Amino acid sequence: MFIYPKMYRKLKRGPQVILPKDIGIIIAYSGVWKESICIDAGTGSGWLAVTLARLSKHVYSYDMREEFTRIAEKNKEILGLDNVTFKTGDVTKGVDERDADIFTLDLPNAEKALPAVKKALKDDGLVVAYLPHTEQLKKFVMKLEKLGFYDVHCVECIVRDMLVRKEGVRPSTKGLWHTAYLAFARKGAKKIPPIIKTDESFK
Amino acid sequence: MFIYPKMYRKLKRGPQVILPKDIGIIIAYSGVWKESICIDAGTGSGWLAVTLARLSKHVYSYDMREEFTRIAEKNKEILGLDNVTFKTGDVTKGVDERDADIFTLDLPNAEKALPAVKKALKDDGLVVAYLPHTEQLKKFVMKLEKLGFYDVHCVECIVRDMLVRKEGVRPSTKGLWHTAYLAFARKGAKKIPPIIKTDESFK
Amino acid sequence: MFIYPKMYRKLKRGPQVILPKDIGIIIAYSGVWKESICIDAGTGSGWLAVTLARLSKHVYSYDMREEFTRIAEKNKEILGLDNVTFKTGDVTKGVDERDADIFTLDLPNAEKALPAVKKALKDDGLVVAYLPHTEQLKKFVMKLEKLGFYDVHCVECIVRDMLVRKEGVRPSTKGLWHTAYLAFARKGAKKIPPIIKTDESFK
Amino acid sequence: MFIYPKMYRKLKRGPQVILPKDIGIIIAYSGVWKESICIDAGTGSGWLAVTLARLSKHVYSYDMREEFTRIAEKNKEILGLDNVTFKTGDVTKGVDERDADIFTLDLPNAEKALPAVKKALKDDGLVVAYLPHTEQLKKFVMKLEKLGFYDVHCVECIVRDMLVRKEGVRPSTKGLWHTAYLAFARKGAKKIPPIIKTDESFK
Repeated sequence: MFIYPKMYRKLKRGPQVILPKDIGIIIAYSGVWKESICIDAGTGSGWLAVTLARLSKHVYSYDMREEFTRIAEKNKEILGLDNVTFKTGDVTKGVDERDADIFTLDLPNAEKALPAVKKALKDDGLVVAYLPHTEQLKKFVMKLEKLGFYDVHCVECIVRDMLVRKEGVRPSTKGLWHTAYLAFARKGAKKIPPIIKTDESFK
Repeated sequence: MFIYPKMYRKLKRGPQVILPKDIGIIIAYSGVWKESICIDAGTGSGWLAVTLARLSKHVYSYDMREEFTRIAEKNKEILGLDNVTFKTGDVTKGVDERDADIFTLDLPNAEKALPAVKKALKDDGLVVAYLPHTEQLKKFVMKLEKLGFYDVHCVECIVRDMLVRKEGVRPSTKGLWHTAYLAFARKGAKKIPPIIKTDESFK
Repeated sequence: MFIYPKMYRKLKRGPQVILPKDIGIIIAYSGVWKESICIDAGTGSGWLAVTLARLSKHVYSYDMREEFTRIAEKNKEILGLDNVTFKTGDVTKGVDERDADIFTLDLPNAEKALPAVKKALKDDGLVVAYLPHTEQLKKFVMKLEKLGFYDVHCVECIVRDMLVRKEGVRPSTKGLWHTAYLAFARKGAKKIPPIIKTDESFK
Repeated sequence: MFIYPKMYRKLKRGPQVILPKDIGIIIAYSGVWKESICIDAGTGSGWLAVTLARLSKHVYSYDMREEFTRIAEKNKEILGLDNVTFKTGDVTKGVDERDADIFTLDLPNAEKALPAVKKALKDDGLVVAYLPHTEQLKKFVMKLEKLGFYDVHCVECIVRDMLVRKEGVRPSTKGLWHTAYLAFARKGAKKIPPIIKTDESFK
């Protein structure tokens, strides 16, 4: 199924996972690095949490469903990680951590977690949500604006396989068209700029 | 220009850079982590090199043009990194390092570097090339097969901005359609499987 | 601006037009042909209306704003057409025609026209709406289902320019990412099938 | 399989067909209309030929394989058309018709037909080729330039299904990523302009 990254081939997969393409954009856009403290909710199979743990200082990952935490713990063990803590709990009611650099959300009503996210992030800390539907994306962005987050930026990442053979180069016939939208924003007191600056009319 | 990641806003930009979207896919698909040794050629402005340095153990980055190395050194300084070594030199003639985990190539004739890449990578080490044109992609893949690399996988990453406003949600009107193709492969002695397995006829 | 089709280069352009790529999908998916009777609202610059007129028996095109009708009349004259009738009026209040084969909608609240569309179409007649935002698309589809239309099918058409030169083939760097979604449906009494049948989980 | 256009549901399908999305772009970009004379090669199942026949004056469609001509004849009969002529023959050796408005090519080595195409088209007549691989696209464009065609324009049309349900709007998870590239050009003596004008650096 997954050719890359190779480590995912040995991981357990319970609930639906965030795929490498979206994990890649989350990592690159968030600027996570070896000194980052990350909070993650919900854990699911823990693929995002363990990938972040391999790149950052510590990851705290929450899920309300204990059976998912168990799968994630198994994946932590498979990869030999000691810097990820799985917790069973509802992040909309608040988390224990403070001064986090990054807060990732993969929840049906991610916007409900934003007050807790705001408390947990340090100034300039980044929140990113993984949202399959456009309605979720809108609710999330409207709540971000209301709570004074800034640099709101929403994207969709599409990875297209290329078929490269002696007889010819072309994109793969079929492929994965959609997983979810990603919404990024920063905690802060600065005035919110227009949400997207890159758009222009094509008239 | 770049909203995310924030750190790039302060970096110097000389020659054309690899953008965060492609850096994200390189990171996610390569499985790079805190213990990885990376080799990078050519350095360019060093954006890929410094991003990898923030996530891995050490990065060795080569460029033939000394003026680029200088820009990259400046970016290393701005980010306060001590685990990236910039070198001026031609990687097609070989590199000093051995047992590397990852070798990234952003060169016009990346396939010419493959014999040197093969020597420098450890078994199961990963090479990834950033190739703007389809002809380059084909040459690179043909050479990979000839040299016995396996798990060859070629993709294109497209990030589409979403415009999320009270009056409506829709993709941004205009955007970036293409930067480059990414080709991934592993060094090894295993038989090469069919290059892409996910393709099916749509008849 | 437009390389193709050549005839558009000489047409007047007032309000925003439906572009050839979307006109092409409307024509191909609707099955419009030389014997078709088409109704169109709103006219705008009349590009869709005159294109349909060149391919069908007769087009009746409505717009509430008389100044647009004037631009469209000019375009009809430029192309030497005699089988398109421009009318100033509000289609949500009903149209004069009956037994139409195709009804095209480019209106802010296209769903409000659906009762009138249903009266004007013959059995098995096709309605298609051009809708820039996802919220409009949803409102339109919900109303289609309520009114008993069937074969509901929603798409987005993306045309990507390819740069083909001696030095290499690749997609164009920048381009048009979004104009509007297109929603198709048929008038009829048959039970509505699941809206999209082609989707599968990627688990 | 095909929801739209409805008429295709009853057509025979032998060899691989050109899909409605690509037929739509061919129609819209070529400016074909009720007075057009079209030449088509190779016929295949005849879907493009019969669709063009429903919109134009006459279509002459060539294929080297007689068994395909038979399927296409069947489709002509199903649709009750009298303005399409199927011929068995090799278009690279020339066609009988002259002063055609449009010449469509769906052949493995489409560039070999270009001298015959040039003879058969009227001044300003349009050629369009359907080419799955990038190598074919390049060969075709290079030959177009050599033969003095102008307004060369190459595109790829991607149609993405949208899933519109009460619980949310989002693109379909999986879909068709690639069929073929389309290359358009005009016969003429005018100087060839730069192939693509819309591209800009993203530096």
